[in-house]
Amino acid sequence: MNFKKEAIKLHEGLKGKIEIKPKIKVNQKILSLIYTPGVAEIVRLIHKNKADVYKYTGRGNTIAIISDGSRVLGLGNQGAEAALPVMEGKALIYKTFGNVNAIPLCLKTQDAQEIIKIVENLAPNFGAINIEDIESPKCFEIVEALTQRLDTPVFHDDQHGTAVVTVAGLLNALKVVKKKLEMVKIVILGAGAAGYGIMTLLHYAGARNMLVLDSQGIIYEDRANLNKYKEHIARITNPRRERGRLGDALKNGDVFIGVSGQKNILTQKQMKSMKKHPIIFALSNPDPEIMPQEARKGGAAVIATGRSDIKNQINNDICFPFIMRKILDEHRKKIDELFLYATAKKIASTVKKVRADKIIPTINEMKPL
Amino acid sequence: MNFKKEAIKLHEGLKGKIEIKPKIKVNQKILSLIYTPGVAEIVRLIHKNKADVYKYTGRGNTIAIISDGSRVLGLGNQGAEAALPVMEGKALIYKTFGNVNAIPLCLKTQDAQEIIKIVENLAPNFGAINIEDIESPKCFEIVEALTQRLDTPVFHDDQHGTAVVTVAGLLNALKVVKKKLEMVKIVILGAGAAGYGIMTLLHYAGARNMLVLDSQGIIYEDRANLNKYKEHIARITNPRRERGRLGDALKNGDVFIGVSGQKNILTQKQMKSMKKHPIIFALSNPDPEIMPQEARKGGAAVIATGRSDIKNQINNDICFPFIMRKILDEHRKKIDELFLYATAKKIASTVKKVRADKIIPTINEMKPL
Repeated sequence: MNFKKEAIKLHEGLKGKIEIKPKIKVNQKILSLIYTPGVAEIVRLIHKNKADVYKYTGRGNTIAIISDGSRVLGLGNQGAEAALPVMEGKALIYKTFGNVNAIPLCLKTQDAQEIIKIVENLAPNFGAINIEDIESPKCFEIVEALTQRLDTPVFHDDQHGTAVVTVAGLLNALKVVKKKLEMVKIVILGAGAAGYGIMTLLHYAGARNMLVLDSQGIIYEDRANLNKYKEHIARITNPRRERGRLGDALKNGDVFIGVSGQKNILTQKQMKSMKKHPIIFALSNPDPEIMPQEARKGGAAVIATGRSDIKNQINNDICFPFIMRKILDEHRKKIDELFLYATAKKIASTVKKVRADKIIPTINEMKPL
Repeated sequence: MNFKKEAIKLHEGLKGKIEIKPKIKVNQKILSLIYTPGVAEIVRLIHKNKADVYKYTGRGNTIAIISDGSRVLGLGNQGAEAALPVMEGKALIYKTFGNVNAIPLCLKTQDAQEIIKIVENLAPNFGAINIEDIESPKCFEIVEALTQRLDTPVFHDDQHGTAVVTVAGLLNALKVVKKKLEMVKIVILGAGAAGYGIMTLLHYAGARNMLVLDSQGIIYEDRANLNKYKEHIARITNPRRERGRLGDALKNGDVFIGVSGQKNILTQKQMKSMKKHPIIFALSNPDPEIMPQEARKGGAAVIATGRSDIKNQINNDICFPFIMRKILDEHRKKIDELFLYATAKKIASTVKKVRADKIIPTINEMKPL
């Protein structure tokens, strides 16, 4: 049976990857305690002191996975129903690796203001919100507004999770080539959730010589039609106001980070213009910006992809359940760069013997953060 | 330890009554099938044909329990957080007795239009919606609008569930006293979700001589300040345009149904004005409108309460998981009186030997409907 057919058969058999499980076996006595009349006392206590909701309910270990299906995997706008099997898969991984109870909630609306309003109104049920597979820049607007308005942390895995694992990998890769983050030139191909998140966290971590490229090429101040997030990118990157395409950007570069969704866009020839011992993170899935064997021929000192079948897998999938576990355990109210950077350093430090082909743990090597 | 302390201790220990459970154990192969890249094929299939969401995800067996906490148990407006432990309890019962995966979603907003909008946007995730503990008449407005707009069935347990179990009990009680539903005079005390639901279903079943009372007394056409739901009650009940209080309403009555929340409001003296062999359903919890021993002295032929510690428990808690199971199994799009009445008759028929003290099954005697 081929892979697609196998996936279909498995999904058809399961009819849902997660289910609800009672935490207690019910008898008449238990029922009277956890439901009427006994639960009335708990209602009164929480009504008196809202914070007690964490003491007496599952809120503290329950999160929502919110998507509008506008950018599902690499497939574009697929809508709420089609996004559901992905969010169920994510919920399964959350529970299996992080013991987090995650509820998939795919929304029919794709309007940012409506999504913000809905999530605000759902917040009382959840210890954290995971925003997922919403197209950019809408996702940034939603994450920003919710982070401001809610006391419940808003984790945007495509942005925050990808940034954490990429920075973790880069910290170790730089050790291999004995370069300093503050000194290297970093070229980020892709200015969506991942590119924006990586750029922001690298800037926080001390990187000062970055170029970010979108489909129009290098982002620079005063380029036409920049949205507010790309304006922000332009302000804190590109110190020499470079212009041009990927080939121009890579000249004298130390690090390439591809989160572009473009297969084989990086060439050996382009790599030749980079500095000695370049670090190549070709993270697009399933097809990296350059295949590892090509990158090696091009002189790469460290190579990583997003794929699980190649060494050095840099993929938010390996860390999101652990990051969320940490968010919930620490009773965080907000996600900030301080927290994300500390988490990246922690993940980097779990690799005991850093080598060119071992810069990041696998999901099975991950430990509580 | 007293009962309240025991409830608190149990809730504190559990920290949530339900949790998410993976339906499959994960290894690298399984991960690649149920998450990226394998899940992409499922996304494409559902995107092509939305109905396939029932084939490949858990939607068909997952429901939302929606509340705004505006009328929690008998405690009034308690807000979203305080409503959460009740909805978790309900979810636990749904799974235990109906194998239904129910997700508690308590909303911060208490605005009917906002609630309608939110539920519409959440519908793609759910096989049915359970509306719970929202004050009337707001709950009717919400149920009506959602039933119209959604292809997903909207079950209002306080209204539909209570009506089903009450009608089931009444069908059997009438057998005991050998009276016909079409002929008896029925007095319903309480015009909230329960009273409205019971009246509507009894009317559908053929009852033509009903009086419904709210805090202002008997509801009649042209009474001042009737909302649209009470106007509807006035139109299809009270054929002789009676006015007055409970004492007036009960004269020559055959059946009393109390869903008023008023303890000991029905007196033996009032019962004396009823016809021979009156049926007394004093369903308010925890304190019925009349205690059974009093009702017996007053000449009641059949007595039921909402309490589990007294024979003939008429309480939606005994049937909602089974009704929902049936809704999901039959892939219903709407809840209507035809369905509710058929369900009531089915429940009534599960009592093999109907007697005055055995008109309704217990939750443990309930079978799939």
